[in-house]
Amino acid sequence: MRILGVDPGTRVTGYGILELFSRPHRIVHVCHGTIRPRACDMAGRLREIFDGLSDLVRQYGPSEVAVETTFHAMNAQSALKLGQARGAVVLAAALLDIPVFEYTPTEIKKAACGYGHAGKDQIHAMVCTVLNIPKTAVSSMDASDALAVGLCHASARKLKGVLG
Amino acid sequence: MRILGVDPGTRVTGYGILELFSRPHRIVHVCHGTIRPRACDMAGRLREIFDGLSDLVRQYGPSEVAVETTFHAMNAQSALKLGQARGAVVLAAALLDIPVFEYTPTEIKKAACGYGHAGKDQIHAMVCTVLNIPKTAVSSMDASDALAVGLCHASARKLKGVLG
Repeated sequence: MRILGVDPGTRVTGYGILELFSRPHRIVHVCHGTIRPRACDMAGRLREIFDGLSDLVRQYGPSEVAVETTFHAMNAQSALKLGQARGAVVLAAALLDIPVFEYTPTEIKKAACGYGHAGKDQIHAMVCTVLNIPKTAVSSMDASDALAVGLCHASARKLKGVLG
Repeated sequence: MRILGVDPGTRVTGYGILELFSRPHRIVHVCHGTIRPRACDMAGRLREIFDGLSDLVRQYGPSEVAVETTFHAMNAQSALKLGQARGAVVLAAALLDIPVFEYTPTEIKKAACGYGHAGKDQIHAMVCTVLNIPKTAVSSMDASDALAVGLCHASARKLKGVLG
């Protein structure tokens, strides 16, 4: 089972792809990266996020997409922008018939680090440790956040017994 | 020149299509309506909004899309939801290469009613008067808001001399 974790943003959208195996339960890092829209206008940026995500789904064929949902400590204008980026991500998955799952930052931090108030550096370190990849391989915090979203979904999937 | 005005929302997305003529300057009502997603999950709702808007663009062939952009008097959670609906609308236009223009509620109210603090009832009444359609023909405030967005863009287009 392949999972695409996404940390949406209009400036940087992080993504991370994980492969889950059962018996024994194992999570393998496939790839990660960022989409950094170059367009100046919002319509162009959303299109780049949408196209980037659609390409990833077609190329790597994840069966499920997990997205961080956050609106805490955020003003309405930032939330509106984030919502648009999130909409582009969710639509890219939905139009290719891939189910989308949502997780709060607290759920993601708990799954990745064991407690809900971990900082970005801690998430980055823990994600690299769990996935057995060098820290220098994940240069963007947006990508490590996206991998953490994927780990959170993998953990939920294991708890639900989807992986046997 | 044909304009599609949109008032995005995850529960109800209003739309209104106007045809602009120059020499003499004239705005003709083409149609209006609402998209009311039935899906329970956000991904399904965004897909319905996206598909609905894409169908409208293909059917009526507007050359420009105008969207209300608002985040005032709104908490972050509502803004995040609205942002996602807005993202679906903007993407539907952008993927079909239709330019998207944004207007604030104040700009829209000024264009439709002459002042920036008009209520929804006043917008509804003025939109119907300006477009010469019976008030009963526009049963949804979301649709009259969308027609007002279209009128605002028509006014901006006239001021910029696009229509000659």
